[in-house]
Amino acid sequence: VCECFAVGNAFSESTAVHRIAPDRYRGAIPAGWDIAGNANGGVLLAIAARALLDATGRADPVTVTCHYLAPGRPGDVTIDVTVIKSGKSFATANAAMVDAEGRPIVQVLGACGDLAGAAGPDVVTGSAPDLPDPEDCVVRKPSDAFEIPFNSRIEMRLHPDDAGFAEGAKSGRALVRGWFRLPDDEPIDTVALLLAVDSFPPTIFNLDLPVAWTPTVELTVHVRARPVAGWLRCVFGTRFLTGGFLEEDGEVWDASGRLVAQSRQLALVPRAS
Amino acid sequence: VCECFAVGNAFSESTAVHRIAPDRYRGAIPAGWDIAGNANGGVLLAIAARALLDATGRADPVTVTCHYLAPGRPGDVTIDVTVIKSGKSFATANAAMVDAEGRPIVQVLGACGDLAGAAGPDVVTGSAPDLPDPEDCVVRKPSDAFEIPFNSRIEMRLHPDDAGFAEGAKSGRALVRGWFRLPDDEPIDTVALLLAVDSFPPTIFNLDLPVAWTPTVELTVHVRARPVAGWLRCVFGTRFLTGGFLEEDGEVWDASGRLVAQSRQLALVPRAS
Repeated sequence: VCECFAVGNAFSESTAVHRIAPDRYRGAIPAGWDIAGNANGGVLLAIAARALLDATGRADPVTVTCHYLAPGRPGDVTIDVTVIKSGKSFATANAAMVDAEGRPIVQVLGACGDLAGAAGPDVVTGSAPDLPDPEDCVVRKPSDAFEIPFNSRIEMRLHPDDAGFAEGAKSGRALVRGWFRLPDDEPIDTVALLLAVDSFPPTIFNLDLPVAWTPTVELTVHVRARPVAGWLRCVFGTRFLTGGFLEEDGEVWDASGRLVAQSRQLALVPRAS
Repeated sequence: VCECFAVGNAFSESTAVHRIAPDRYRGAIPAGWDIAGNANGGVLLAIAARALLDATGRADPVTVTCHYLAPGRPGDVTIDVTVIKSGKSFATANAAMVDAEGRPIVQVLGACGDLAGAAGPDVVTGSAPDLPDPEDCVVRKPSDAFEIPFNSRIEMRLHPDDAGFAEGAKSGRALVRGWFRLPDDEPIDTVALLLAVDSFPPTIFNLDLPVAWTPTVELTVHVRARPVAGWLRCVFGTRFLTGGFLEEDGEVWDASGRLVAQSRQLALVPRAS
């Protein structure tokens, strides 16, 4: 399906983009990164973010907002970047991803910068989630209802208290905690953090609701620091499920105990079928 | 300064836009809605949101993300809207606001819809902030350091425990709670919620840091419901001030006890001068 360049297995290869014209990029939604046929939303955002970074000449996606417009099926995509302002600290730009038929897949607005020199006072009242060691956490099993090829592309270990939903043992709390890393020791850069925040099962799988999926309307990620090597500690929670909407708030912490990303998405609760 | 139409005192008039071409709007950054000369960020977002709503033909800004690119000074602005997708539930569009010299002021990406028929299961674990009655709360006094004409455009009452910072009695917690409404019983629609979430003093004024302002990089607002008439209960908190960045998370509750908006912004901690 992907004609313009070979797609490798690693995350960085699978989300690579090539400039084909000023501010126009070619990429591909990679096969095998899907949940029941549709690419994971973090993968789509990562592809768009790589185009944003290249076009703006910046190293890190500091704050990016992604609107999900159509499911991502494997195949070529084009990303058009519009740089709105290129300032001293940040470059702000839009990225519009369309598929081979020109159908909008995602639309991204982001500010890119350089987090290497980030400095300032630290006042932190939140803390990383308490997790059993990765070997004492739970590998998500394939669902009976649908296939999740995506789960073989990442390494995810769920907190045992949050992992029973697949066997019908829902915790009753809209909370999912766990570990995340990339296979084969692939380094996690700040683009991979955009993947991490959208990799875990929906929080409301742990509520007593007949919900099989929660389509994301919008996802915003604040990348707060470049992670050190090692497992990431992740926590996702929902406090307000109202009127057919829910927010899902995420935090990602690196092995040094530093908060490296915060995320919030607005998702929909589909009517029970 | 504002040549194209008269600007009234009310919020709705002050943030009105007129269509001057397909997908192009004229508005004005109104005088008197500023903090030390720069328009409040919620006002800028509201102007852009009105253009988004008109261009998309939708009633409510369901999720909007605003990047702040330059301070807003009173005067005419042009807003160009690009509709990316017009779907059944949502219309997704960009709005680019530039001043009379063509300088970018804000860039907005939003999904607009209709919240009148929002329905679904309710699972809520958060709760509205406990506040003394409005008459027992604190009206923010003018600062000795700079003028805040904006504060005469809204009605805001701060929780007494969070209001001492102006007199040097910082609470030590990055938390600001209070009431919000518009003067003269002006109704609060879902665009006015975009104002409410950016109207309160920065949370970190209550920390022991030499910070006089916190420029916003990006603000995302999820409008969750249309508010009923009456005072809004608001709470803003910061848990992570790191590397020169902080998030500010907001919740707005209406008089019926319903969550009507959630907000998060990424702001900067300027180096002490």
